[in-house]
Amino acid sequence: MKNFISVKDVADINALVAKAIAYKANPFADKNLGAGKRIGLLFLNPSLRTRLSTHVAAQNLGLEPIVFNVDKDGWALEFEDGAIMSGNTVEHVKDAAPILGNYFDILCIRAFPTLRNKEEDYSEEVMKSFIKYAGIPIVSLESATLHPLQSLTDILTIKECLPTVPPLGGGGGKPKVVLTWAPHIKPLPQCVPNSFAEWVNAWGEAEFVITHPEDYELDEQFTKGATITQDQDAALKDADFVYVKNWSTYTDYGRIYCNDPKWMLTEEKLKLTNNAKIMHCLPVRRNVELSDEVLDSANSIVTQQASNRVWAAQAVLAEILKNK
Amino acid sequence: MKNFISVKDVADINALVAKAIAYKANPFADKNLGAGKRIGLLFLNPSLRTRLSTHVAAQNLGLEPIVFNVDKDGWALEFEDGAIMSGNTVEHVKDAAPILGNYFDILCIRAFPTLRNKEEDYSEEVMKSFIKYAGIPIVSLESATLHPLQSLTDILTIKECLPTVPPLGGGGGKPKVVLTWAPHIKPLPQCVPNSFAEWVNAWGEAEFVITHPEDYELDEQFTKGATITQDQDAALKDADFVYVKNWSTYTDYGRIYCNDPKWMLTEEKLKLTNNAKIMHCLPVRRNVELSDEVLDSANSIVTQQASNRVWAAQAVLAEILKNK
Amino acid sequence: MKNFISVKDVADINALVAKAIAYKANPFADKNLGAGKRIGLLFLNPSLRTRLSTHVAAQNLGLEPIVFNVDKDGWALEFEDGAIMSGNTVEHVKDAAPILGNYFDILCIRAFPTLRNKEEDYSEEVMKSFIKYAGIPIVSLESATLHPLQSLTDILTIKECLPTVPPLGGGGGKPKVVLTWAPHIKPLPQCVPNSFAEWVNAWGEAEFVITHPEDYELDEQFTKGATITQDQDAALKDADFVYVKNWSTYTDYGRIYCNDPKWMLTEEKLKLTNNAKIMHCLPVRRNVELSDEVLDSANSIVTQQASNRVWAAQAVLAEILKNK
Repeated sequence: MKNFISVKDVADINALVAKAIAYKANPFADKNLGAGKRIGLLFLNPSLRTRLSTHVAAQNLGLEPIVFNVDKDGWALEFEDGAIMSGNTVEHVKDAAPILGNYFDILCIRAFPTLRNKEEDYSEEVMKSFIKYAGIPIVSLESATLHPLQSLTDILTIKECLPTVPPLGGGGGKPKVVLTWAPHIKPLPQCVPNSFAEWVNAWGEAEFVITHPEDYELDEQFTKGATITQDQDAALKDADFVYVKNWSTYTDYGRIYCNDPKWMLTEEKLKLTNNAKIMHCLPVRRNVELSDEVLDSANSIVTQQASNRVWAAQAVLAEILKNK
Repeated sequence: MKNFISVKDVADINALVAKAIAYKANPFADKNLGAGKRIGLLFLNPSLRTRLSTHVAAQNLGLEPIVFNVDKDGWALEFEDGAIMSGNTVEHVKDAAPILGNYFDILCIRAFPTLRNKEEDYSEEVMKSFIKYAGIPIVSLESATLHPLQSLTDILTIKECLPTVPPLGGGGGKPKVVLTWAPHIKPLPQCVPNSFAEWVNAWGEAEFVITHPEDYELDEQFTKGATITQDQDAALKDADFVYVKNWSTYTDYGRIYCNDPKWMLTEEKLKLTNNAKIMHCLPVRRNVELSDEVLDSANSIVTQQASNRVWAAQAVLAEILKNK
Repeated sequence: MKNFISVKDVADINALVAKAIAYKANPFADKNLGAGKRIGLLFLNPSLRTRLSTHVAAQNLGLEPIVFNVDKDGWALEFEDGAIMSGNTVEHVKDAAPILGNYFDILCIRAFPTLRNKEEDYSEEVMKSFIKYAGIPIVSLESATLHPLQSLTDILTIKECLPTVPPLGGGGGKPKVVLTWAPHIKPLPQCVPNSFAEWVNAWGEAEFVITHPEDYELDEQFTKGATITQDQDAALKDADFVYVKNWSTYTDYGRIYCNDPKWMLTEEKLKLTNNAKIMHCLPVRRNVELSDEVLDSANSIVTQQASNRVWAAQAVLAEILKNK
C-alpha cells in the first residue's frame, strides 16, 4: 500500500481486517516496525477519535508521531495552481508539502469539505495535492468526500460481531447491513456514508441497503450496488446491522432539506430489525440522530466500533511501512 | 489509589509526600513502570504548570503522554443525562469517555468551574462523569472545586522547608500555616483554597488559619478544623508559612465583593510573621496579589513549590500504576 | 555554546555548518546524546518549519520534546519589570521562566516583534528575560529581530550548493550573494534579513549585496560590511545566490511604503544573474514575492533550504548538549 485515501488503495479488504484483528490481540507485535521513522498528523479540522487512535496506532508500531494543527498552529494553505497570493492564504501546498515530505516518513491529513462548492470538494484537491507534492505516503484522516479509516473500522467491527448474530437477516447467508440517514441540526459532509457505501460494496459480503429521505441521494460512484429506498421501515426489516448517520444533500449541494425527527432511530424502529447491532461513527447527537434508549442498549456497538479505530489505523500504517 | 480527585483518594499523605521526595532525588527510579502504557491529558481549560509537570512526570515513569485540548482540538462535550443534543454540545461524555478509556490507561482532566451555577460546579459533574463512564483511573488536573495535585505539592513543599524554619510559630511544635485571601481583578475559582484547606486539615500537622474579608467564606466541608478570621494581621502573626491566593465569593456565588488592595501581601505585613515562607500556586498577578518585594525576596518559595509539581504528579501516577 | 540567539553565540560558523552536514548524512549519529533530557518548545507565535524541524532534530538526539503554545494553551506573559498586573497579562516572565527552567534542560522560544515599538522590539526583551530568569540554555526559534536557526540553514545551503555553481560571480573567487527585498501585502518583521545579513557578514566568504527600495534600510548593526543599493538590476548582475524576502520599514518602524510589484523576482530578472540559485525562508507569497516560474524552476533551492532546517537545529542542540 502506498497511500490510503480510499478503498481503491486496498488490495484485499479481508486481509487488512485480519491484520487489524491480529493487532487488537497483540498491540505490540510490530513494535519496532517504525523505529527511527516519523509520522506527521496534520489537522486542518478538529478531530478526537481519529487523532487519538492514529496517534496510539503509530506509537504501537514504534513510529514517532508529531501532531500539527495547520489552521491553529500554522496558517491557511493555498491549493490553487497559479494563484496570486495576495489574499488570506499564506503558503502554497506546492511549497509546504515537499518540506513535510522531507521531515516525515508518512503524512496523515484531515481536511473537511467546505460544502460550498461540490466540484471543488469532490475533486479531492487537498489529498491529491499532498500526494502530488509531498513525495511520501499520504493517509487520509477524513477528506472532503471519504473517511477510509472509519470504513475499515466499520467492516472490522461488523466482521467481529458476525458470529454473534445468526441467523442472518440478509439473503444468501449474508448479513443485512443498512445505512440509514438521520436528522441533525447542521449540514454535515457526505464522507462517512460515501466511504461506508464504497467499502461495503467493495467488500461484497453483505446485503446492503441505503435509506434516506427524498433529496438526500448520495453520489452514485460510491453507492452503486446497494439497494436504495426512501422507506426506512422497509429498509430496517430483518437488518443485522444498522449504521445511523446524517449527511447533507449531495445533488443540491451541502443543504438541509427534510429534517424530519421521524427519521431518528428509536427502540420502536429497532423492533423491525433482526435485533440489529447499531453503529455510528461518533460524535453522535443524542436524541436527535439516535435515541438514548438505543445508544444505551445492548444493541449499540458504537464504543467497540470507535475503539477499533486504533487497530484499523495500525494495520494501515503497518502495510505502508512494510511497503516502503 | 484508583482515582485522584481529592485528598479522600489518599490513604497516607505523608507516605505519598515521601514518595514524591524520593522521585525528586531520583527522577528515573521507576522509568519502566509505565512502559507500554498511555496517559491522556485532556484540557477543557488552559494550563501551564499542571500540563507541563504532569507531562514530564509521565515521561519519567515511561508512560507515553498524549495531550488533547478538548475545547480547541475537539468540541464541546455534553454532561446532562437525557439531553436532546440540538444545541452547541457535539458529543456526550457517555459516548466519549468509554472510548478514551479504551485508548488510554490513565486519563487526566482539567475542567474549571463555570462560576455561574454553584450546585452544578460543586456537584463535580465532569470528574464524576469521567469516573463513571471511562472505566480507567481518572486524575484531576484541577476540577470545578479542587486542585489536589497542587495541594500535594503544597504539603510537600511545606515539609521540605520545615527544617529551615525553627522555632515554629504554631502551637505544640507545629508550624503555623496561614491561607490568606488576596485581591485580584477577575472572579477566580475556589479550587486552590478549598483543596489546600482540605489537605492541611487532613494532614493535621499544622496550626491552620484562614483569613479573608467578609463575604469570602469558603465551603465548610473543606475548611472545617481551621481557625477562620477576618483580621489578616492577627492571622499573619508568627506565621511560618503564608499561602496567598485570591478566590471569588462562595455564598453569593462567583462574585467579587470587597477587593481592597490592603489585602495584598507586602513586605510590611511579612514583618508580622515568623519570617514566613511565602507560597502561591501561580500564575500570580504581581503587585495586585503579592508585591514584587515579597515575591523577589528570599522568603518566597513559589518557584520551589511550582517545580515540585513534577514530583507530586509522579508520585500519584506511580501509585495508580502500581495499583493497576 | 550556551544560548543560541544570534551569530555571536557561534564560535566557528564553518564548524557548525560541517556538523549540520554530518547529521544530514547520519541523522542518528548522536541518538543518545540527549537521553533523559527534555526540551521545551514555546510558541508565542505560529510556526511550521521551525516547529517541526526543531522537534525532529530534538528527537534525533534522543531529547524528549514538549511543545507548548503559550498564547493558546496558556496565557499572556508580562515582561515589564515592576508592572502592576491589573491588565491582560496573567503571569510575569520572572515567575514563569525559572519554573520552565526546572522542568526542561533546554528551552526554545518563538516570539515575534509587535512592529509597533522599535525600541521595545530591538531590545529583545523576551529572549533576554528568558535568558535572565530561566537558568538553562535558550534557543531562539525566531525573536523580535533575528532568526538564527534560519540563517544557519541559509549558510549551510549556500555551502552545499557552492560546488555546483562555478565559475563564481563574485570577486576573489567568492560567490556573489544578493539579498533582495520583495513586495508583500502585510508588514513583516525584519528578522530574516537582519539575521541573514549578520551571518553572511560574520561568515565573510561571500561578496554580499543588499538591494531594496528607498525607505527600507535595515539596521546597520546587521548590514555593515554589505554593499547596499536601491538598483535591483545592478545588484542581481552575476549573482550566484539570490535571497528573496520582504520586510517592513525599519527607520519609520513597521510600515509599508513602496510596494512596487516590479520588485517581485521573475524569470526575466533571473537572466541578469549567473544562473543564480534562488532562496527564500518560506512561507512565500507566490506571484507576489516570487513568480511561479522562478519558484518552480531548477534554480529554486527553497525546498532544500527548508529541509536543511532539521540539520541546522540538530547541530545547535548538540552543541548545547555537549556544553552542559
